Amino acid sequence: MSQTTIIGENLPNIPWQDKPAGSSEVMWRYDANPIIPRDAVPCANSIFNSAIVPFEGKFAGVFRIDDKARFPHLHRGFSDDGINWDIDPDHITFDCDEPEIAEFVFGYDPRVCFIDGRYYVTWCNDYHGPTIGAAWTTDFKTFHQLENAFLPYNRNGVMFPRKINDKFLLLSRPSDTGHTAFGDIFISESPDMCYWGKHRWVMGKKMGWQQTKVGAGPIPIETTEGWLMIYHGVLTSCNGFVYSTGAALLDIDEPWKVLYRTRPYTLSPHTDYECVGDVPNVTFPCAALADAQSGKLAIYYGAADTVVGLAFAQVDELIEFTKANSEV
Amino acid sequence: MSQTTIIGENLPNIPWQDKPAGSSEVMWRYDANPIIPRDAVPCANSIFNSAIVPFEGKFAGVFRIDDKARFPHLHRGFSDDGINWDIDPDHITFDCDEPEIAEFVFGYDPRVCFIDGRYYVTWCNDYHGPTIGAAWTTDFKTFHQLENAFLPYNRNGVMFPRKINDKFLLLSRPSDTGHTAFGDIFISESPDMCYWGKHRWVMGKKMGWQQTKVGAGPIPIETTEGWLMIYHGVLTSCNGFVYSTGAALLDIDEPWKVLYRTRPYTLSPHTDYECVGDVPNVTFPCAALADAQSGKLAIYYGAADTVVGLAFAQVDELIEFTKANSEV
Amino acid sequence: MSQTTIIGENLPNIPWQDKPAGSSEVMWRYDANPIIPRDAVPCANSIFNSAIVPFEGKFAGVFRIDDKARFPHLHRGFSDDGINWDIDPDHITFDCDEPEIAEFVFGYDPRVCFIDGRYYVTWCNDYHGPTIGAAWTTDFKTFHQLENAFLPYNRNGVMFPRKINDKFLLLSRPSDTGHTAFGDIFISESPDMCYWGKHRWVMGKKMGWQQTKVGAGPIPIETTEGWLMIYHGVLTSCNGFVYSTGAALLDIDEPWKVLYRTRPYTLSPHTDYECVGDVPNVTFPCAALADAQSGKLAIYYGAADTVVGLAFAQVDELIEFTKANSEV
Amino acid sequence: MSQTTIIGENLPNIPWQDKPAGSSEVMWRYDANPIIPRDAVPCANSIFNSAIVPFEGKFAGVFRIDDKARFPHLHRGFSDDGINWDIDPDHITFDCDEPEIAEFVFGYDPRVCFIDGRYYVTWCNDYHGPTIGAAWTTDFKTFHQLENAFLPYNRNGVMFPRKINDKFLLLSRPSDTGHTAFGDIFISESPDMCYWGKHRWVMGKKMGWQQTKVGAGPIPIETTEGWLMIYHGVLTSCNGFVYSTGAALLDIDEPWKVLYRTRPYTLSPHTDYECVGDVPNVTFPCAALADAQSGKLAIYYGAADTVVGLAFAQVDELIEFTKANSEV
Amino acid sequence: MSQTTIIGENLPNIPWQDKPAGSSEVMWRYDANPIIPRDAVPCANSIFNSAIVPFEGKFAGVFRIDDKARFPHLHRGFSDDGINWDIDPDHITFDCDEPEIAEFVFGYDPRVCFIDGRYYVTWCNDYHGPTIGAAWTTDFKTFHQLENAFLPYNRNGVMFPRKINDKFLLLSRPSDTGHTAFGDIFISESPDMCYWGKHRWVMGKKMGWQQTKVGAGPIPIETTEGWLMIYHGVLTSCNGFVYSTGAALLDIDEPWKVLYRTRPYTLSPHTDYECVGDVPNVTFPCAALADAQSGKLAIYYGAADTVVGLAFAQVDELIEFTKANSEV
Amino acid sequence: MSQTTIIGENLPNIPWQDKPAGSSEVMWRYDANPIIPRDAVPCANSIFNSAIVPFEGKFAGVFRIDDKARFPHLHRGFSDDGINWDIDPDHITFDCDEPEIAEFVFGYDPRVCFIDGRYYVTWCNDYHGPTIGAAWTTDFKTFHQLENAFLPYNRNGVMFPRKINDKFLLLSRPSDTGHTAFGDIFISESPDMCYWGKHRWVMGKKMGWQQTKVGAGPIPIETTEGWLMIYHGVLTSCNGFVYSTGAALLDIDEPWKVLYRTRPYTLSPHTDYECVGDVPNVTFPCAALADAQSGKLAIYYGAADTVVGLAFAQVDELIEFTKANSEV
Repeated sequence: MSQTTIIGENLPNIPWQDKPAGSSEVMWRYDANPIIPRDAVPCANSIFNSAIVPFEGKFAGVFRIDDKARFPHLHRGFSDDGINWDIDPDHITFDCDEPEIAEFVFGYDPRVCFIDGRYYVTWCNDYHGPTIGAAWTTDFKTFHQLENAFLPYNRNGVMFPRKINDKFLLLSRPSDTGHTAFGDIFISESPDMCYWGKHRWVMGKKMGWQQTKVGAGPIPIETTEGWLMIYHGVLTSCNGFVYSTGAALLDIDEPWKVLYRTRPYTLSPHTDYECVGDVPNVTFPCAALADAQSGKLAIYYGAADTVVGLAFAQVDELIEFTKANSEV
Repeated sequence: MSQTTIIGENLPNIPWQDKPAGSSEVMWRYDANPIIPRDAVPCANSIFNSAIVPFEGKFAGVFRIDDKARFPHLHRGFSDDGINWDIDPDHITFDCDEPEIAEFVFGYDPRVCFIDGRYYVTWCNDYHGPTIGAAWTTDFKTFHQLENAFLPYNRNGVMFPRKINDKFLLLSRPSDTGHTAFGDIFISESPDMCYWGKHRWVMGKKMGWQQTKVGAGPIPIETTEGWLMIYHGVLTSCNGFVYSTGAALLDIDEPWKVLYRTRPYTLSPHTDYECVGDVPNVTFPCAALADAQSGKLAIYYGAADTVVGLAFAQVDELIEFTKANSEV
Repeated sequence: MSQTTIIGENLPNIPWQDKPAGSSEVMWRYDANPIIPRDAVPCANSIFNSAIVPFEGKFAGVFRIDDKARFPHLHRGFSDDGINWDIDPDHITFDCDEPEIAEFVFGYDPRVCFIDGRYYVTWCNDYHGPTIGAAWTTDFKTFHQLENAFLPYNRNGVMFPRKINDKFLLLSRPSDTGHTAFGDIFISESPDMCYWGKHRWVMGKKMGWQQTKVGAGPIPIETTEGWLMIYHGVLTSCNGFVYSTGAALLDIDEPWKVLYRTRPYTLSPHTDYECVGDVPNVTFPCAALADAQSGKLAIYYGAADTVVGLAFAQVDELIEFTKANSEV
Repeated sequence: MSQTTIIGENLPNIPWQDKPAGSSEVMWRYDANPIIPRDAVPCANSIFNSAIVPFEGKFAGVFRIDDKARFPHLHRGFSDDGINWDIDPDHITFDCDEPEIAEFVFGYDPRVCFIDGRYYVTWCNDYHGPTIGAAWTTDFKTFHQLENAFLPYNRNGVMFPRKINDKFLLLSRPSDTGHTAFGDIFISESPDMCYWGKHRWVMGKKMGWQQTKVGAGPIPIETTEGWLMIYHGVLTSCNGFVYSTGAALLDIDEPWKVLYRTRPYTLSPHTDYECVGDVPNVTFPCAALADAQSGKLAIYYGAADTVVGLAFAQVDELIEFTKANSEV
Repeated sequence: MSQTTIIGENLPNIPWQDKPAGSSEVMWRYDANPIIPRDAVPCANSIFNSAIVPFEGKFAGVFRIDDKARFPHLHRGFSDDGINWDIDPDHITFDCDEPEIAEFVFGYDPRVCFIDGRYYVTWCNDYHGPTIGAAWTTDFKTFHQLENAFLPYNRNGVMFPRKINDKFLLLSRPSDTGHTAFGDIFISESPDMCYWGKHRWVMGKKMGWQQTKVGAGPIPIETTEGWLMIYHGVLTSCNGFVYSTGAALLDIDEPWKVLYRTRPYTLSPHTDYECVGDVPNVTFPCAALADAQSGKLAIYYGAADTVVGLAFAQVDELIEFTKANSEV
Repeated sequence: MSQTTIIGENLPNIPWQDKPAGSSEVMWRYDANPIIPRDAVPCANSIFNSAIVPFEGKFAGVFRIDDKARFPHLHRGFSDDGINWDIDPDHITFDCDEPEIAEFVFGYDPRVCFIDGRYYVTWCNDYHGPTIGAAWTTDFKTFHQLENAFLPYNRNGVMFPRKINDKFLLLSRPSDTGHTAFGDIFISESPDMCYWGKHRWVMGKKMGWQQTKVGAGPIPIETTEGWLMIYHGVLTSCNGFVYSTGAALLDIDEPWKVLYRTRPYTLSPHTDYECVGDVPNVTFPCAALADAQSGKLAIYYGAADTVVGLAFAQVDELIEFTKANSEV
């Protein structure tokens, strides 16, 4: 058993795979990837950047499904093992008392965060431009929509799994109206999930694989070394963007302070299902399952904006790698 | 036998394939796609957006072939079954009395339309910019070039298979000098294939798979429900354009009136030969064969600007789908 | 009296001004420019690119007036001397039987051409993009709208003042949806002002003052040396476009053949009213009055997209200059 | 005396000027404009988009001054008559306990709003991009800096002069990192000037003078007809942006509801000091003084990003004009 | 007499003007600016970025003249007092034995540098793109063309007035093919004015007035404090570029080392002739005359790419200002 | 044995493959491509555009390896057969006495050229932008860095394998700061590898596969027909760049004179490893081995900026093809 550093629950069992013999990778792919094909539900053009959480001893998820009109929606799903999923072909509808924001035009790239008995869903929501939508559920049946966290234009809203100083915390990446060619990660706090302030800059782009923009990925994982934030970074090649994955450690109490940050990526598009699809050359992590007992980590990521892939890591090894290969 | 709605001739036999069991697709791919590989003639870099018609009990075609200097040309071809093609390695030369337009610099994306004993070929022709070239043949040996239909800049000129109110009708998409990032479908009429006027707007882009531009595909198919116009629509992802295929129904007598139009696409790049090639993520339909007796439809489309693919549909089912999933 | 070369009528009298002593200019400005200020009618934000013709022994005009919402409209006006104008504060409305094109969204940059008893007005008309609108009047009270000449996107439609080979002729500049950064002059012909064809390229951009785009200006003036076409050319400086004016001679019978074309400009923004205004650095000629007897020429041009300026030339001198300083 | 509709205080006296005889303008310029030249303090490159308020029976202001390194700063100033100003050559420094935001890199385009005994200053502040900075003062000597209201990227933050439903209200325009080519006005509310939420869209661009973007100008003026919001709108000509001024009426209780909005502009760059300068063709209102008794309105606006201009209006006439010329 | 620091010759007399009373400017304009109007020779559209040197007890110059076709050429001129110029209406032709570079397409923005009995002219020369042309003369009658110093794309080549370590030194700004939106100053050395190497970076852009690009201006002036390099810097406003002027001090022996550099500009477009013209908002210094005895400095600069302006400074004051307001 | 035309040495043996039966290709791929996978050394993200030379009876190479932070570096490698490579996992460090250029930020796309006992390495080096770095070695252990050949911005520096007129010759492609959308090949000469001059234009882009830019590939091969220069050309499709390979013959004594140049490409991205990877659709030749005795040619090229591919040709056939299909 690993000398794990995760502060959290033990997970329901999932079919972990060890690192392939001889591999020097700190994140390695599940050998039956993609775990969810693009057409897992009939209406789907593609199923990709999606959020998974432990739920009632098993797993629940909120999935980004682009329908065949190429409108993105959010769908719920359930799984016994985190790999084989039963996804609802009908998209989620949100309960909302506020007519101004109740109309759901489109939503994408969900994250799900469990705090104090509620599963909070955040996503990129359309309200006169992309911004951070928010809702909560206890049962993945009824979803209660909250106010949008921010003014447009924003994407990649990711909550912390507990309050700090009695405030909710939310990572996000201010953006513009289109395929934003810039982007830094900021953090904001709220007393009530309605009003947000005390915006702090967390980190920006750096040369190499993250030279164009960065955005938070899964809900950060609390460890004895700090918050482990897995994130995506984007490089602009002469034929478009390349989305890779890296890791950072944030200060436990002041998570806008970046302690370490991987100079190399930890996962980058190499396989066919990551390189070929609706958007070539994308790995985009949106969820991670961390098992406190074993220190095992399962990262769910969208591949080529088309399918869902799964990668594994060992948290203590990933943290060690992050510290040893850091450039803040 | 289907209760077909096609107004037209019965086709020579082609090896139709039924919809795969369990499929929910309204257009399904031929299982031996691509039917024409990129190197079917020695000079070819690629063979793709091409036009097929019934001809003397068999089939003839005008093919877009980009040579290895990457200049596009038009080539004739013949086939017994619509699938195995004998393509002339020499490109078509046009008879033309008018020196100003007789020099053929390049031409691409042909369509072929049979009216009153003549096969009219329209294509994207270079005359101080892209515009709609036109010619006719009766035997696919001699091609008589006509005046260009329009001023530059224009692409995707598609004729109607009969005159309406004694006028020729021509769909087109006004463009600009480059990889046009906008584009609506218009219709124009002519008494003589020389002078064109009464230009009417038919339809424009819409959110989703057709958010950037649209252009007519095969010669519209006359049905009891209206003209069935298969067309392409383009979405701009962060890594470039994605060309999908949809369908619309136009009013029989006033075809600038769109009765129905598919909100979802009917075909989008999913296979390797559609996603990988000279231009990734392209399905671009240029011809359709409709069999009046059986209601079967064969759609020829360029894939990845590299090869020719074939897809099938049942016309009544496609029309029903278009009406049931319409957003005009 | 000059040995003039103009083929045409003698003009009503206007207060001609001779070339200033010592000037080497081939076009010289009226010393009380601008002749029409931006606020000559109360609703006007600006009055600029406008068309003037002799009418019933005096003068009539069609003016571009941008209102204070910055929508461009066409207004009629009358003058005894071509300099002092009585402009109708209400914009022209067009009689039109065809509902599809009858709604007037906006129109700008008119030209007026007298042929066989009718004054034809052409302008940049909005029909799902800019294209060439057309109408005729005999009295400048009732205007009969015709079909738009072309598909979008087009601007600067300029007719010839008589038929050639029994066809109407129309110069135009194919454009795109915005502030087009390219543009060549083409010519098209029509038997009936409804259907247009036989499109021919006339001339394109050249290095220097006309490096970005060119467009026809006033109705060409018939002379014994060919058609005198005054046109605008655009240079792209690092702070935007500069619109200058030049002259060309076109073949009388085949006016798509350019015989001569001024390598230098003949007028360029130098004065404050040409350099400062809603669009800095613009001289944009839209009309010219040529007096056959005296050979005098009055050129009306928009200045800075804000006011109307007037310049004079002597036709034989201008033609001589064009031939002596030509680069085709 | 006018039958005024302003809800508010009477102003200290300023040298009002009546509308020029014969003018049809609803806003008219002070005849000694610009009231503040670009070099009114020695360090200044330019003094323009600035905020004025009544203060202790006279007037105080916060001025945007770009120094000769072309860095924008905020300066205080005082005046007896609103026209002759004594501007502090040293820029304002803000008291701030929070080190993360205390460093003042640059700030521009201030507004000043009096609520419950405090003068709140909002401005475009640099914090890893432009966002809305906030501070308050009671004496224009000491300024207490608050948290930035929003994440980047935002500009044109304008408060309402009283709480509604016990919340502060703040108009703003989400932007991007550069010379943003889009922009709608939103409103947000806060219980405490620290946390902001309930973001609502107020209004966006419209064809004509406001075709590119819009942004709130002075603090809205409360009237019996609603909140009078003077705002700027931007048109993109082929030689850059043109900034004009218009007016809207917002619902008193739900100010995100636009009741009326001027289809024409009310002020647009016509004079030399508005058309020529560091940024040609700009009128940019940042403050307005409304006298309840007389209904007179004085609008302070930046001209050409170089100097400060002053314009006058009569509130009831302006409201009547807004209602009569509205297109929402 | 000033305690001057200039290492060099005393100048022929020019009508110096003292700083206006009360001015805080470190560079002040000649009160009869522009000294050369745009039409000083008949062929000229404009006369601006030009180089002046002492010559045979008087002054000679090489002028940029754009003709009325808007092609830039180099013209010689002579003056007794540096202000009233006799400019040759015919442009300079260069003697050149090397046919490949002998054809003069266009040339602009000259500088003239006197070394060891020769006046070296450098300019922006066209050879498959802009690069640094070079020639020498002893009499301003015959000009001997040398090899272009660099590969394209380059502009603003400025020599040092003496060899250092027995090598010629040349400042330049690598550019691209158009209106380059970036640009740093580099220095290169040559044993023979034919082969160039040992390229060193000197300085780049900085926030504020020089945020977009910088380029060397006049021949650097040797002083006891280092080389005084007057240069231009460019800011991008939302309506285009603004060209201002600043100063730097470079190390005498290793002039790629910047000792001081003005954080503020020393001259920026404020007057009408600098703000209005073919390119609004340009001051572009190309020459400076320094009088060793008096320490007076005359700076010749192009204004609005249209005319030549003259400004004065006192070298010791300018150096003191540069050191006191430096940000390297 | 072929009647070869190569002027040079015989090669160590490599496992040549004959042209596949029935192929009409003039360059054909090695059937076990890619010969070097992306992960041939543990640190590598990708190994691609690389240079190979005969060395001590076997082969040595300098490889572009992008590490997992996506920084490009140069690595040495050795091989017995040119196909199986032992690549040093540590990147090359250069000996350099000159501190200003000694810091190696990144370097890519190396070429290696043997002249007079030294192997010269040129590459794209970062010195305030991309420029041509240079060094030499005799043993591939110690590398002596020289001055950068040129000012930025430049890429694709390729030396000639012997001096001409006692001068070193260097091909290069002036570029800009980013993914340059233009590019011509120039040649420069140097007496000493330090100072460079006499820059001559060699060739530019042409319609078709080389419509956007061109750049030299391997060290030119001396033949009795001229220098055989294999080069890359780039086409801009609507989904990005496509990098193909062609050939040209340059004059032996004046190699800036292009004798012949292939109108078609000789190799273009067709296989999966060329079409899919970090940059889709790239073939980028950097080295060629020519065997004088047999006339065989092995071309090493980067594929998809991810792996190294190998292609073969017969020099006499390639030259014949170039002459027969030339358009200069």
